[in-house]
Amino acid sequence: MKLSILLFDGFTALDVVGGYEVLSRLPGMETEFVSAEPGIIAADTRRLGMVTYCDYSSAASTDILYVPGGPGVSAALSDPALLNYIQSASRTAAWTIGICNGVALLGAADLLGGRTVTTNWSWRERVAQYGATVLPERYHRDGNLVTGAGVSASIDAALFLVGEIAGEMMAKTLQLGIEYYPAPPYGGFSVEDAPEPLKATIRAYEASGAAEALLAQPPPF
Amino acid sequence: MKLSILLFDGFTALDVVGGYEVLSRLPGMETEFVSAEPGIIAADTRRLGMVTYCDYSSAASTDILYVPGGPGVSAALSDPALLNYIQSASRTAAWTIGICNGVALLGAADLLGGRTVTTNWSWRERVAQYGATVLPERYHRDGNLVTGAGVSASIDAALFLVGEIAGEMMAKTLQLGIEYYPAPPYGGFSVEDAPEPLKATIRAYEASGAAEALLAQPPPF
Repeated sequence: MKLSILLFDGFTALDVVGGYEVLSRLPGMETEFVSAEPGIIAADTRRLGMVTYCDYSSAASTDILYVPGGPGVSAALSDPALLNYIQSASRTAAWTIGICNGVALLGAADLLGGRTVTTNWSWRERVAQYGATVLPERYHRDGNLVTGAGVSASIDAALFLVGEIAGEMMAKTLQLGIEYYPAPPYGGFSVEDAPEPLKATIRAYEASGAAEALLAQPPPF
Repeated sequence: MKLSILLFDGFTALDVVGGYEVLSRLPGMETEFVSAEPGIIAADTRRLGMVTYCDYSSAASTDILYVPGGPGVSAALSDPALLNYIQSASRTAAWTIGICNGVALLGAADLLGGRTVTTNWSWRERVAQYGATVLPERYHRDGNLVTGAGVSASIDAALFLVGEIAGEMMAKTLQLGIEYYPAPPYGGFSVEDAPEPLKATIRAYEASGAAEALLAQPPPF
């Protein structure tokens, strides 16, 4: 079984690695990292770089297409080659998994009409514009499409997908393997339950354009 | 404030990225990835590669030294240059954070005598041999040393450290930023509470040497 993880400039690393660490451990899984041009792809902080070694044509056929999010999604939304890859790989894949605002890329690739999904909390309205019904859930399955909320939700979404593919015992085994018995030091409040000042801080950060401005900085590699 | 993340062949990616995604978001943080020879370092699956751009001498002085774990720890334990880097960087750093069996590297660098730590559940006895008291906790602070249990515990350990450095509100804000309100699809059982058959499966995998055998495979990059 083949897992193809799409990277693009300005991805968020935990969107990728949370799900990778689960799905790549499924026995028999062959994992590959994909981008337009194989090489080093810079994450949103510009401080972390991850390697791809498959281009769109060599990764055309896969079993699980994995699309992460990040501030780089804004630019990727107008990248026809990337959207075309998502559309064609998803058409033949057994599963497509979208994380965070990477779900918007699925929408731009015309994959969300009439589908029910979740996404990063601050992208809900934008994702809904692609014809999807957006639920405030941590992960969600609609047919062969599994979507996850923001960043760390990639872990839960991937464990859920493992359960769908290989059953509950396998999901629990991989969960124990990554010692996932989470205990957030200050409690596990959801976006809906988060104190308003915290949400205001995040909203102000996002409105400031700081994340996009960071993408203009050259990475040190 | 400077965060120096040490990579070595065969690291586990979520050990790194769980903490990186939290700590690198602390306002003013300058994050760097460090290894003996800057370049692409292969993770334990051989399918994920991450980039370093600082060698031991250029990263000699830091504020937070971050040491992840992985199957590659076994070889790293007999790497004098790596242990010497850990020892010297830790001596001047305000904080040292060790995740998973990366805590054993702190022990081999002579940093654990009389200290209280946590670690990956299957490395507790080995870590104790370095003179440490090992607690079955998800994260733990002893002075300027913060340690985390296996893999995904890097998220909780890093959020805890942010709380110690910058207070609870900052930790909660970063927690909301990565949407960390975990909901493992099959429940959040700890290692202590895990069903015995699951633990037996993990123990059998570890005893098989499969993780170490995988390290002999050349990465595709």
